[in-house]
Amino acid sequence: MDIKRFVLEKAKEAGAGARSLATASSQLKNDVLGAMAEALREHSADLIEENAKDLEYARKKGLSSAMIDRLALTGKRIDEMAGGLAAVAQLPDPVGEIITMRQRPNGMTVGRMRVPIGVIAMIYESRPNVTADASSLCLKTGNAVILRGGSEALNSNRMVVRILQGVLQQFGIHPGAVTYLDAPGHEAVLEMIKLEGLIDLVIPRGGEGLIRTVTENSRIPVLKHYKGVCHVFVDREAELKMAGDICFNAKVQRPGTCNAMETMLVDEAIAKKFLPKMLKRFAAAGVVIKGCAATRVLFPEAKKIAEGDYRMEYLDLILNVRVVKDMDEAMAHIAAYGSLHTDVIVTGDYAKAMRFVREVDSSAVLVNASTRLNDGFQFGLGAEIGISTDKIHARGPMGLEELTCTKFVVFGNGQLRQ
Amino acid sequence: MDIKRFVLEKAKEAGAGARSLATASSQLKNDVLGAMAEALREHSADLIEENAKDLEYARKKGLSSAMIDRLALTGKRIDEMAGGLAAVAQLPDPVGEIITMRQRPNGMTVGRMRVPIGVIAMIYESRPNVTADASSLCLKTGNAVILRGGSEALNSNRMVVRILQGVLQQFGIHPGAVTYLDAPGHEAVLEMIKLEGLIDLVIPRGGEGLIRTVTENSRIPVLKHYKGVCHVFVDREAELKMAGDICFNAKVQRPGTCNAMETMLVDEAIAKKFLPKMLKRFAAAGVVIKGCAATRVLFPEAKKIAEGDYRMEYLDLILNVRVVKDMDEAMAHIAAYGSLHTDVIVTGDYAKAMRFVREVDSSAVLVNASTRLNDGFQFGLGAEIGISTDKIHARGPMGLEELTCTKFVVFGNGQLRQ
Repeated sequence: MDIKRFVLEKAKEAGAGARSLATASSQLKNDVLGAMAEALREHSADLIEENAKDLEYARKKGLSSAMIDRLALTGKRIDEMAGGLAAVAQLPDPVGEIITMRQRPNGMTVGRMRVPIGVIAMIYESRPNVTADASSLCLKTGNAVILRGGSEALNSNRMVVRILQGVLQQFGIHPGAVTYLDAPGHEAVLEMIKLEGLIDLVIPRGGEGLIRTVTENSRIPVLKHYKGVCHVFVDREAELKMAGDICFNAKVQRPGTCNAMETMLVDEAIAKKFLPKMLKRFAAAGVVIKGCAATRVLFPEAKKIAEGDYRMEYLDLILNVRVVKDMDEAMAHIAAYGSLHTDVIVTGDYAKAMRFVREVDSSAVLVNASTRLNDGFQFGLGAEIGISTDKIHARGPMGLEELTCTKFVVFGNGQLRQ
Repeated sequence: MDIKRFVLEKAKEAGAGARSLATASSQLKNDVLGAMAEALREHSADLIEENAKDLEYARKKGLSSAMIDRLALTGKRIDEMAGGLAAVAQLPDPVGEIITMRQRPNGMTVGRMRVPIGVIAMIYESRPNVTADASSLCLKTGNAVILRGGSEALNSNRMVVRILQGVLQQFGIHPGAVTYLDAPGHEAVLEMIKLEGLIDLVIPRGGEGLIRTVTENSRIPVLKHYKGVCHVFVDREAELKMAGDICFNAKVQRPGTCNAMETMLVDEAIAKKFLPKMLKRFAAAGVVIKGCAATRVLFPEAKKIAEGDYRMEYLDLILNVRVVKDMDEAMAHIAAYGSLHTDVIVTGDYAKAMRFVREVDSSAVLVNASTRLNDGFQFGLGAEIGISTDKIHARGPMGLEELTCTKFVVFGNGQLRQ
């Protein structure tokens, strides 16, 4: 197979899909999404059959049981996947919205209209539901998507795409709107991310290594989803019951996510009152504590922390604890060791809250709320294709609006440049 | 000189500058801009002296008189440069603005606050006023800038930067906020655009070759300003007097700009009535006409067009003219040969106007107005750092807002993730 040519063909098909979608009405797109949800449910048995091939291969390859669980499709999971598509159909369509509209002194009216980006390449790992999720969000926003999932889910992904493409054709939309890059090995991906002009945006979702490789080799803009080293700073003016609940929720509610707390920073003025009880609560929940010297005086069971630990994204029931002099030291710690993802202050002091919000340079800065709330659904975006750690185009949770760009539209009556 | 280390040092200085600027008040930033304007005026003689060295070198190198003119600083040009800084001081500060603020069902309030991007690298050619312009726009938006101008303007650029840095220090801002990458050759630039994590955005301004080289080698997001192949489509329902004035303005008012018209598309239903008179007017203004077969029947003086001409950005008094069957053929032409920059329809038909606006995928789509109006000042952005041909982050004219990103800010009272 001539990989270069194959990838080029796929990108061109996606381009045709994008043109076919760009001017589709909201009603048509919603009808397609509804029909896709139905089609997934109807083809449950086929999906489970194809998924079984992936599972068998995964077991032979010796994948961990956690990974095999992520990979597995059940009737319930397929139903949830379909429900996701139906939910996207219910969201407002951002395409065509004019977000500002101003009259200029020369009488022309200048607006900014949301339009699709064009062709979006999604590179992701394992879970086959991402195939349906990403397709639905791109379709709703009038973008074509080129999907590239992990090899371990290949049969499942192929089947999902075949079902979705069938619906597209049924509604007269070019099936390239949902394209799967079905070529083995990394070469196809490396070719794809060089197709400047044919692909408009690349979104890699997965480990740091994958994202780095894509960023280093891409000539197309890449929206990155790097790790979250998230902090909660408990200020001396915090209500300690609230602080305890927020810290506990931030660490324990779902430790494997990028918006879970990795380091708790505690104001020295309240450390003695707050820490021993809090750390006992954590320990009872199975959290391993790594503490600074001051922490270990108050809670001797804590392990000794190494400086490098402050940069770790554990994604596990492990927590760094550091006692700091004041908010300035906490903000300096966050700037030095954080990943600009999600940071929280718990305080009752108005001036400190406002200063923390203004000065901490993270994608989400929260006052008196859990890090775990940094999420597209929680923030009211209706959907989420990821949490961007970039500062360009989108920062923080990315919903439908972040899958569009704007163009200027001008309504004149003969205006010239003087 | 160890180039790698030198570039790294410069980027770190800029980072220190960015931190020093990020939380500066609008008042302080405006005071600094005002003082910079004054300082440029005070040092006019020094600037002219340094500029003379560049001019001498340019003459020795045999640069064209047009290029030498662009390079030259006079008292008047320095005054205009200073005036530009003072004008930026007058613009509203986007930093800190909260653009949406919503209450969520759980009682927390979620906003999006505009914040600086961080460190922006500007790579540009010849005119030394870009050094002051770019510095002022970045400073106003709280960003540090690393400037890299053309070697032909090195002495002038160094002097401008020295003056601006003097003012920064006077106001207690880290001088790295305006950093000049003062190392000869391309190596320094190639090193700089790999400094992911230290530099947040690269904006190359110049020829297509420069932009391509930067895009292909950068690991940092690049905002591209590619060529403008702009169209005016004169529909059969156009008011022909208005159409004539718009076309003439679009081509002749300043042909050397990226938003000048390169191709005029004329509906066949009015070609006979519109074209001969229009093309005579163009010819009288010195415009060379390249025409399709139908055009040459109506205006035999037109040169025969080659297909490749339709892709040309002439930046000169040369115009492609093509007669088309209808708006669909015009839109197909724009999609096939255009550069998604600026496209215009002249029509009195409501439905066609709305369809053209919706379906043409350019950074600016205008009805009954000149292509030349696609400009930050004309659109009311107050300033312009360029016209982005990208679809990511910014599209079309980039003003101050496009030099910021947003972060989510959340005001809670103990909210947890359920």
